[in-house]
Amino acid sequence: MGSTAANRAVDKGVDFANYFCTYGFLYHQKEMLCDRVRMDAYFNAIFENKHHFQGKTVLDVGTGSGILAIWSAQAGARKVYAVEATKMAEHARELVRANKLQNLVEVIEGSMEDVTLPEKVDVIISEWMGYFLLRESMLDSVICARDRWLNPNGVMYPSHARMWMAPIRSSLVDQKKSDYEGAMEDWNSFVNETKTYYGVDMSALTNPFTEEQRRYYLQTSIWNNLHPNQIIGTPVIVKEIDCLITTVDDIRDVRASISSSITEENARLCGFGGWFDVHFRGSNKSPAQQEIELTTAPSEDTGTHWGQQVFLLHPPQRVQCGDNLTFHFSMSRSKDNHRLMDVDLSCEIRQPSGKLLPPFQKKFYIE
Amino acid sequence: MGSTAANRAVDKGVDFANYFCTYGFLYHQKEMLCDRVRMDAYFNAIFENKHHFQGKTVLDVGTGSGILAIWSAQAGARKVYAVEATKMAEHARELVRANKLQNLVEVIEGSMEDVTLPEKVDVIISEWMGYFLLRESMLDSVICARDRWLNPNGVMYPSHARMWMAPIRSSLVDQKKSDYEGAMEDWNSFVNETKTYYGVDMSALTNPFTEEQRRYYLQTSIWNNLHPNQIIGTPVIVKEIDCLITTVDDIRDVRASISSSITEENARLCGFGGWFDVHFRGSNKSPAQQEIELTTAPSEDTGTHWGQQVFLLHPPQRVQCGDNLTFHFSMSRSKDNHRLMDVDLSCEIRQPSGKLLPPFQKKFYIE
Repeated sequence: MGSTAANRAVDKGVDFANYFCTYGFLYHQKEMLCDRVRMDAYFNAIFENKHHFQGKTVLDVGTGSGILAIWSAQAGARKVYAVEATKMAEHARELVRANKLQNLVEVIEGSMEDVTLPEKVDVIISEWMGYFLLRESMLDSVICARDRWLNPNGVMYPSHARMWMAPIRSSLVDQKKSDYEGAMEDWNSFVNETKTYYGVDMSALTNPFTEEQRRYYLQTSIWNNLHPNQIIGTPVIVKEIDCLITTVDDIRDVRASISSSITEENARLCGFGGWFDVHFRGSNKSPAQQEIELTTAPSEDTGTHWGQQVFLLHPPQRVQCGDNLTFHFSMSRSKDNHRLMDVDLSCEIRQPSGKLLPPFQKKFYIE
Repeated sequence: MGSTAANRAVDKGVDFANYFCTYGFLYHQKEMLCDRVRMDAYFNAIFENKHHFQGKTVLDVGTGSGILAIWSAQAGARKVYAVEATKMAEHARELVRANKLQNLVEVIEGSMEDVTLPEKVDVIISEWMGYFLLRESMLDSVICARDRWLNPNGVMYPSHARMWMAPIRSSLVDQKKSDYEGAMEDWNSFVNETKTYYGVDMSALTNPFTEEQRRYYLQTSIWNNLHPNQIIGTPVIVKEIDCLITTVDDIRDVRASISSSITEENARLCGFGGWFDVHFRGSNKSPAQQEIELTTAPSEDTGTHWGQQVFLLHPPQRVQCGDNLTFHFSMSRSKDNHRLMDVDLSCEIRQPSGKLLPPFQKKFYIE
């Protein structure tokens, strides 16, 4: 199916029920607004690059509570269009008024794809990043906004994004395996009891139940705040995105063949951690005065609400310093919900001696 | 809006995303199949009333894993139609085959409203009950099936249903109040910090945030397994339903004015517990040989997966043995989702002396 057709196939009502509804709660907005790493990055990106905002027109895609639109106005924008698909738009409008910016910030309730602006804009700002960058597929809406509404010399906030992965150790691998085994033990007692007490043989469902539980416990990536010392090999870049030129086709399927070296002696490879960073660099024609980075890499300090996504390796594998991991990563959108992701990961481990360990190939779901 | 128009207004895709999807997981089916009170009731209702099944045609509305259809066939049905809206239909078909009943049980994937059967049926069996009986509004589909497919002398399994309420004591009232106060303290720090660090005044959102949190912590009914000793007054019937004759109009809005007497000395009225029971009595023309009851009332033994719904009273109120509670109960479907419920509860407490305590009126949400 082509790109336009695929987008058209998304039922708006279903998408709202599955996705947008969460963003209609102030509680959820507050969680994002309390993420200091996120807030500081956008705040500094705007106020240390006021030249991008002074006297300019700005579009905030998915404004939520309106914070980025308000900062843009406070930094000197002539006009800010703040588009929000959920009822949160009403609260954003209220907040804009309370901060006396109603003459500068216009909150528009609607989905970005449907909205018409009275003019083109000089800056598109958006906090569109989901877990492991692309979950939620919200960048699509930002791309759509850019293609329709950004002036030829306009800038994107953020301007660049990268996905990262690294081999990790994690006790989650044992916990999830034990959870899975517990669920299967429960199932087996259930099958026995249903046969004994109710005369029905449920064993025909053991295979699909096993599959369902394997998927849930072993193949679904996990939100986690990794500590840097859980990283046992060199982090590698999986994908780089230039927000000014990327297309939906460019991000719909992410494929990479990459290498990482184990940096720890006698370590237990329990899986991979995935995270992202974004940069605010302006554009070639209009660079930032102060480049700002927002990273969600494992950190000793406070993490972000994005944490990292952990892809567990069952069973874990013993690796040695200097072992070289070559892995093929592929991520595409889930058939049932374009905002969720299916990941394929295959990996080869070569020891310094040249000897190859048995390769593995795994399927994961980012839900 | 009239009944047909209201039903038509439900977007099927959205309803599937919000509601049916849960029932597509075997894990969820297993939870229901492990509910011994539920299983025993249906099992006994069928096998102690084989005369209703032998040589008869049966329709199972929302068959899930197919258990009720399989029992109906094992009890001697000539033909069983098992309708299921989710992909669980495939597993049901597998289970039917594994139990060698594929000649008797026909699994049909589709929503009850859309399905066409080749003949009318003698029995409609269904496990349609949601929390506090009517949450999920699945009885609508059973009524639709009955009106279209039940023979004039057919019977309904279950045949009757009742909603109950009783005044209760519960420490949840303190816990939820403290959770709410904690959330509001967090909010106030957040408002201060956002002003200090980021120059934005968020206090305009304090009122809507308060409302959102009040609704979440104080006004949303809570799933709970009550112990019988938490009941401090006489349980009262809020609604009785005869499944053979009830209509969607009859259950869309439930209203009742009822009285309960406090049965404990110096008790703390913390709210109300709501539960249901259903009965399998056959019909007047074809009564059950053995009447079976399935109750979800508070019990010292194992509870059911339905538990009870608790509606908390903030602040709780001191009551005395013999105090008489008169309350007006009204439950209607949520505007945004016809499977969820809005409840209005007003209450007057009269002491044996005739003195009235201050009345209260509360709004609740069953989510």
